Amino acid sequence: MDDFAVDPVILSLTHHAVDWPLCRVFLYDDARYAWCLLVPRRAGVVEIADLTPEDQAQLMQEVVRLSGGVRAMEGVEKLNVGALGNMVPQLHMHVVGRRRGDPAWPGPVWGHSDPVRHDPAERDRRIALVRAF
Amino acid sequence: MDDFAVDPVILSLTHHAVDWPLCRVFLYDDARYAWCLLVPRRAGVVEIADLTPEDQAQLMQEVVRLSGGVRAMEGVEKLNVGALGNMVPQLHMHVVGRRRGDPAWPGPVWGHSDPVRHDPAERDRRIALVRAF
Repeated sequence: MDDFAVDPVILSLTHHAVDWPLCRVFLYDDARYAWCLLVPRRAGVVEIADLTPEDQAQLMQEVVRLSGGVRAMEGVEKLNVGALGNMVPQLHMHVVGRRRGDPAWPGPVWGHSDPVRHDPAERDRRIALVRAF
Repeated sequence: MDDFAVDPVILSLTHHAVDWPLCRVFLYDDARYAWCLLVPRRAGVVEIADLTPEDQAQLMQEVVRLSGGVRAMEGVEKLNVGALGNMVPQLHMHVVGRRRGDPAWPGPVWGHSDPVRHDPAERDRRIALVRAF
């Protein structure tokens, strides 16, 4: 596990919020959505099934924990949870807050359009919300 | 829990494959993808966080179990796992087998285009695969 590193594409699109027992937690840098990512701190993992059963259970717990943080962000009506990895194979789980009428609604946010970056104050406010969970 | 029923939209787009301890398992009726659904047999559940912690852990186990069945289908190179619910709020988890060059690649399958229904032989072959897991 010593060679764990987060994919540079993920790093370029996110801000680090906090580390939980399994995952590094990121705020995705798109102000239009309340969008966070969980990246298990395990090297070489692509699919959920590549994790041990204990880590799979922990990932689920951290999805639910992060769901609380995302739901606390303004305007969130529905959560979208997904692990795709078609572009970046390293296992990462999205937890995205959606609302009727958001730019991608009712379609998925993934691949919809280029992100609109946060201003620093909103970024820091959202990161603080995640850290409170 | 007595009033559990699967949303009619889900029923119209799928074939029932099998019931596992928590979920009803469906084959999504689109021959272009190895695409299955898990629907927890609990009434009134919209978000993963609405499940009890025990059911959340069981859902994760069934995601991994279904991942095996989907990976056994022809041509699958990558899994996409997601719970969206923007159109159908009842909690349902997609496990989708993807391959480079499939019609939606590298974007998500959700909302991409109308399904191309299975012929009965391929439908039955895929359902048998899921049941074997």
